[in-house]
Amino acid sequence: MKNFLSEKARSLAPYTAGEQPKDKRYIKLNTNENPYPPSPRALAALNTFKGDTLNLYPDPQAEELRKAIALAEGVSPENVFCGNGSDEVLALCFPAFFGEKESACFPAITYSFYEVFARFFSVPVQTVSLKEEFYIDFERLKGIDCRGYFIANPNAPTGAAVPLAEMERFIASVPDRLVIADEAYMDFYGQSCAPLTRKYENLLVVKTFSKSYSLAGMRCGYAVGCPSLIEGLFRMKDCFNSYPLDGICQAVCRAAIEDIAYHKKTVRLVISERVRLQAELRALGFTVPESGANFLFVGRARISGKEIYTRLKEEGVLVRFWDKPFLRDFCRITVGAREQNDVLIEKLKQILS
Amino acid sequence: MKNFLSEKARSLAPYTAGEQPKDKRYIKLNTNENPYPPSPRALAALNTFKGDTLNLYPDPQAEELRKAIALAEGVSPENVFCGNGSDEVLALCFPAFFGEKESACFPAITYSFYEVFARFFSVPVQTVSLKEEFYIDFERLKGIDCRGYFIANPNAPTGAAVPLAEMERFIASVPDRLVIADEAYMDFYGQSCAPLTRKYENLLVVKTFSKSYSLAGMRCGYAVGCPSLIEGLFRMKDCFNSYPLDGICQAVCRAAIEDIAYHKKTVRLVISERVRLQAELRALGFTVPESGANFLFVGRARISGKEIYTRLKEEGVLVRFWDKPFLRDFCRITVGAREQNDVLIEKLKQILS
Repeated sequence: MKNFLSEKARSLAPYTAGEQPKDKRYIKLNTNENPYPPSPRALAALNTFKGDTLNLYPDPQAEELRKAIALAEGVSPENVFCGNGSDEVLALCFPAFFGEKESACFPAITYSFYEVFARFFSVPVQTVSLKEEFYIDFERLKGIDCRGYFIANPNAPTGAAVPLAEMERFIASVPDRLVIADEAYMDFYGQSCAPLTRKYENLLVVKTFSKSYSLAGMRCGYAVGCPSLIEGLFRMKDCFNSYPLDGICQAVCRAAIEDIAYHKKTVRLVISERVRLQAELRALGFTVPESGANFLFVGRARISGKEIYTRLKEEGVLVRFWDKPFLRDFCRITVGAREQNDVLIEKLKQILS
Repeated sequence: MKNFLSEKARSLAPYTAGEQPKDKRYIKLNTNENPYPPSPRALAALNTFKGDTLNLYPDPQAEELRKAIALAEGVSPENVFCGNGSDEVLALCFPAFFGEKESACFPAITYSFYEVFARFFSVPVQTVSLKEEFYIDFERLKGIDCRGYFIANPNAPTGAAVPLAEMERFIASVPDRLVIADEAYMDFYGQSCAPLTRKYENLLVVKTFSKSYSLAGMRCGYAVGCPSLIEGLFRMKDCFNSYPLDGICQAVCRAAIEDIAYHKKTVRLVISERVRLQAELRALGFTVPESGANFLFVGRARISGKEIYTRLKEEGVLVRFWDKPFLRDFCRITVGAREQNDVLIEKLKQILS
C-alpha cells in the first residue's frame, strides 16, 4: 500500500491536548477550563440566535465582535483580529511574521504548541532556559538573534506571571523584534500588555474566550496590535480559511465580553479558590510556585508527578502530567470550583497518607 | 516604521471570497448559499444545545458527528475527518499530502483557493487547461508528473460535472497519485465518488455542510477516505488547531445529516429551479453550460460579464464576477429561491432591453 503522506507530515510530531476520556465521569482539572458557566448574556445570545439564517455565510471580518473586543480593550476594531480559538491566532502568527530564515524564540519551558506550530510552518526555533527554575530569563532572550518572541504570560505550565513593567522594559528593549504576548490566562493575573499596543508597534497581544470567559466550547481567540500586524493576520486567514468563526460564536463571544460584571465576578472566584488551593497544597508539602493563571504547578512532594497523576486518575480526578525533564517532577492542576478543589485535597491527603 | 510581516506573507495574494456588502439589502446570488433554511432537526439541535456546558472544550475528534457522517456515506468513522468548513479540510490536505518537492495539479479553471493554499504551504502547482472550454481534460492531467490532483466536481465556477464512471476511470488510471475530489456541490448532481473510497486508497472525497445542507453559517466540512489519509489529516489538524469545531456545530451538523428526507427535498427544489433558470437565461440569449451545482455560469450575451455584474448590483442583485481571461466573459449566478430567480430574470430582461 502506498503511503500518500507528505515527507513533512511523516516527520511532524503533533501537539497533544489534555486527555478527554469518556470511560467515566471525572473531576476534570486537566485542561484549564473555567468551572463556572458562561455569562447569562452569552447564553441569551445563544438562545436568541436566528438559526434559520445559518444558510448564509457568517461575517468573514467578524466586525461586530471586533467592535466589542476593541471597546473592552480600549483600542479600535482595526487593532483586533479574531480566530477559531487563540490556537488558530497563534498558528497564523507563524506564517505572518516568521519564515525559514526568520526564526522565533521562546522559553524552553512554555506552551508546547509553539514548537509544533513552528515545525508545521518550517520556522526555526531558538529556546532559552528558565532562570531560578520558574521564571523567564529576559536578559538571555534579548541576546538571541531572532525575528521575534512568544511570551506566554502567565507562562504555561508553571503559572508564573511577569509584571507589566517588566514586560514593557523587555518590549522597549527589542524594538526591531516582534513580541507576541500570549495572554490566555492573563485575566487571572490582571496586568495585560494590551494597552501597550497603542505605544509599541512591535507588540501583539493574543487572548482567548476559552478561560476567563468560560467559553472553551465556543472556540474563539483574538489578537490586539497595530493595524499592520492585524492586516498580516487577516492576509494569512484569507490564505487558509475565509470564514473561521460562525455567526453563533461571534454573537455569543460579543455578549460575553460586554458582560463586564459577570467576567469580574467569576475571575475573582477563580482567584480566591487558587489562593486557597495553593495554601492547602503547600500545607501538604508540595512545591507550588506563585501562579497568575487558573491552574497551579504542583510537585516535589514525597511522590512523583506521575504518581500524583496516576493515583488521582484512579480516584476520578484528572490532572495534567508530562513525562519530560523538569516537568515530570510536577503536575499541572486546574483551579476548579470549591467542591472540586475540596475533593482534590481530600484525595491527595489519602494518597499521601 | 518596521514591517514585521514575513517575506512569505508579503508575497502571498490571499483568496478573495464573494463580497458581503452591508450598504443595503441585496438578493444575494454571489456566494452559492442555499436559499432554504437548515433542516428543522438541525434547528432543534441548536435550540436544545446546553449552553452552560460551553465552559468545557468540545470533542476534538468530533466522534458523534463523524459517526453520523459515516452512516450517511456508508463508511466507518475512521474513514471520516471533519474541519472548520471544507476550506479548512482542503487547506490541511496541502501539508498532509504535498510539499516543496511534492507538487499538486489541477485544472487551470477551478476553485481559485487551491492556488492560494498551495502558495501558503509552498507547494508547487501545475495546471491543465480545460478542453472544449468547459470540461476537465483528464487525458492531459494523467500525463502530468505530480503527487496528486484536486478535482472540483462539479467544477467551479463553470458548474460542469464529471460522471461517476469517468471519475472512476481517472482514479483507477493513477493509482500512485492521490485524487482529491472536492464535492462541495455534488449533492446537486448526485454522482458522488464517496463510495469509491472503499475501493481506492488514492481517493479522498471532500464535502461540506455549507451548500446542500444550508449550513454555510455553521462552518463544517469533511473528508472521506481510507484510514491512512484520514490519519494524515488528523496529524495536520493537531499541528494547527486541536479543537476546530465547537460543540454546537457538531450537534447541528449531525442532526442535519441525519435528516435525509429534508435534505432530499431541498436539493430537489434547488435542482428544479436550476433547470428552470437555465432555460430562461438561454432564452435571453446567454451561453449557460450544463451545471451539476447550485449555480450557473452565465455569459457571452450582448453584454460583458462585468456589465451583467455591475448592472445587476445597481438593481440590488449580487452575482459573482472575476476580471480574468475566460472568466470575464461570464458571471457565476447562484440558484436562488423561485422569487429571487424571478427578480433576477426580470432585471436581466430590463438590462438587455
